[in-house]
Amino acid sequence: MTVALAPVDADVAARLLERVRTRRPRVHCLMNTVVQKFVADGVTAVGGIPSMTSSEEEVAVFVRRADSLTVNLGTLDAARRAAIGVAASVAVAAGKPWIVDPVHCDYSPARLAFARELSMLGPAAVRGNAAEMMALGLRAGLEGGPAVVITTGPVDRLLSATRSLRVENGHPLMAGVTGTGCLAGAVIAAFLAVEPDAQLAAAAALATTGVAAERAAPGARGPASFGIAFLDVLATLSPDDLLTHARIHDDRA
Amino acid sequence: MTVALAPVDADVAARLLERVRTRRPRVHCLMNTVVQKFVADGVTAVGGIPSMTSSEEEVAVFVRRADSLTVNLGTLDAARRAAIGVAASVAVAAGKPWIVDPVHCDYSPARLAFARELSMLGPAAVRGNAAEMMALGLRAGLEGGPAVVITTGPVDRLLSATRSLRVENGHPLMAGVTGTGCLAGAVIAAFLAVEPDAQLAAAAALATTGVAAERAAPGARGPASFGIAFLDVLATLSPDDLLTHARIHDDRA
Amino acid sequence: MTVALAPVDADVAARLLERVRTRRPRVHCLMNTVVQKFVADGVTAVGGIPSMTSSEEEVAVFVRRADSLTVNLGTLDAARRAAIGVAASVAVAAGKPWIVDPVHCDYSPARLAFARELSMLGPAAVRGNAAEMMALGLRAGLEGGPAVVITTGPVDRLLSATRSLRVENGHPLMAGVTGTGCLAGAVIAAFLAVEPDAQLAAAAALATTGVAAERAAPGARGPASFGIAFLDVLATLSPDDLLTHARIHDDRA
Repeated sequence: MTVALAPVDADVAARLLERVRTRRPRVHCLMNTVVQKFVADGVTAVGGIPSMTSSEEEVAVFVRRADSLTVNLGTLDAARRAAIGVAASVAVAAGKPWIVDPVHCDYSPARLAFARELSMLGPAAVRGNAAEMMALGLRAGLEGGPAVVITTGPVDRLLSATRSLRVENGHPLMAGVTGTGCLAGAVIAAFLAVEPDAQLAAAAALATTGVAAERAAPGARGPASFGIAFLDVLATLSPDDLLTHARIHDDRA
Repeated sequence: MTVALAPVDADVAARLLERVRTRRPRVHCLMNTVVQKFVADGVTAVGGIPSMTSSEEEVAVFVRRADSLTVNLGTLDAARRAAIGVAASVAVAAGKPWIVDPVHCDYSPARLAFARELSMLGPAAVRGNAAEMMALGLRAGLEGGPAVVITTGPVDRLLSATRSLRVENGHPLMAGVTGTGCLAGAVIAAFLAVEPDAQLAAAAALATTGVAAERAAPGARGPASFGIAFLDVLATLSPDDLLTHARIHDDRA
Repeated sequence: MTVALAPVDADVAARLLERVRTRRPRVHCLMNTVVQKFVADGVTAVGGIPSMTSSEEEVAVFVRRADSLTVNLGTLDAARRAAIGVAASVAVAAGKPWIVDPVHCDYSPARLAFARELSMLGPAAVRGNAAEMMALGLRAGLEGGPAVVITTGPVDRLLSATRSLRVENGHPLMAGVTGTGCLAGAVIAAFLAVEPDAQLAAAAALATTGVAAERAAPGARGPASFGIAFLDVLATLSPDDLLTHARIHDDRA
């Protein structure tokens, strides 16, 4: 059976950003220690309420209070691995949307195996760069697998069982700022909290961060001032800005 | 017996900021991993010398060398809990002033119990937001409890056994920057190191961060550039700026 | 036997910066949790590719993939100590250049002992501030010790068995930004990856960060905007800028 899908466009992104700003979802972030503040500031800027605790003892309570979860595999160790296991179980049991960000899974066989295992616990999405997603080799829409498989880069590609989307927003300066990919993962989680179609939510989130980057770049004197301007714009971007600037392509529309 | 207290005003804040800048107190910070650099930069800006080690093995040595201690409960885990226990004992034994920042104690029963336990070990101050302080339900001036109980928000309220102070400085943009509350806790610790009256010290510290926020806000283009300007102003604020801008109200004066 | 050495000057610094920008070395950073993002952004700015994982389980894989390693002793604990041991062994076995940054080794006897032990495993360099290097009491060029012993401050001093260099670049505002020393250590690691003479590599790296600081300072309104401008300049500094501004003195030339 083929389901007719409405084409995904800038209007969807605008509507979902509006929804995030209004509902203020709580996003629990199991985030690598390098970029925790940058990601927390980004989630706040987009309209969400971040929390970051990553101990096995406390993570269940925080995930239960959250509306969505992002699991980032950077700076992984035994303690973080245990906390991630608990957090994923709680999210699955409670039916909360969650996303896996398999940072550097192409570097380490153990991390790759863990990323694969998590990906088959039914997250709404997995997002990585080309090298990470190549190593993982996921297909969208498999039993137990993620609803949407996302490869970000100069063009972001979002694959579900039934649809292939491209988001063409963004700016090369993002590569000079540690954590823009991690932040994108957490912003996707914020959008997952307000929209059950994970592919729509992720496309809207990536259009939001991408348009913010485009608007932040012209005034920047280098990557650090770009990073500051990026967060400033993320906090002030309006749904109307997305309506005119989001470039989402629905390849099967 | 009622003790006559001199009214607390901007003059106190100016004098204490001057003292921090001159004495350069060492402030050991058991700080959540999210905002460590932001807080270290803030303590440095105000004139203190921060240290951040949080391992059980080393924390005693660092607290002994410090002039004051801030214990922040964000990103708590078993290891950090053990280190906090050691640090609090050392501070109590050595008679060094310390402050508890019960981050998110309203989220988790275990963290709430730990925050209560710490609060009854005789810290100079406990500081949290309204939800955290409501959950904790502390009263000031009880045997073993904190000398001053501080609830920060649009208006900061500082209660001791004998006096009720309000600090009305600050700016809404602070809420967009992860860690401004944590930074306020550490700055209070810096002021506790130079003034034995914990309530005066805390009022002066909160007037300092609040006036810095007010002066940083007008030039900001969003929360991230505000965060940068806030630290810049904190580093350059003069005692005279406090004399003219600190708004400290002594409700029982 | 005396070996005639060519005098070290700005030309060396310019050539090595060019080489880092071209070769893009991978630098693994065992970095304290306070300044991880600042250091990662700095390594990226100078042209390297940072990684930061610090778990005992994964660090060997990351060091093997890296071109050099920086071992920073800030926020040390048992887990980090174990990971450092593994990382140093892998670097030694694989002949990869590495640097030790003995943060606060003057505070704690246990940390000092560990810093000494690491220093005698044959790192290319050890870099600390005056208090730390005084406590460590290293001599350059001893069997098993570091090839170059570096004390940074208003003037940076780099001693090897055969040569004494001074780098006179830098700016007082660096002291207001937590992590500029740690960042310098990681940037030295990036230069060690492209130049086998550790003393030349380190002098070029310190001239690079120092010139960047000098150019960033005039526009800064305080330490935080200075930190942002510093990273911006680091990312855009050209070898020609070093040719005209690097102040490297070869005291035995």
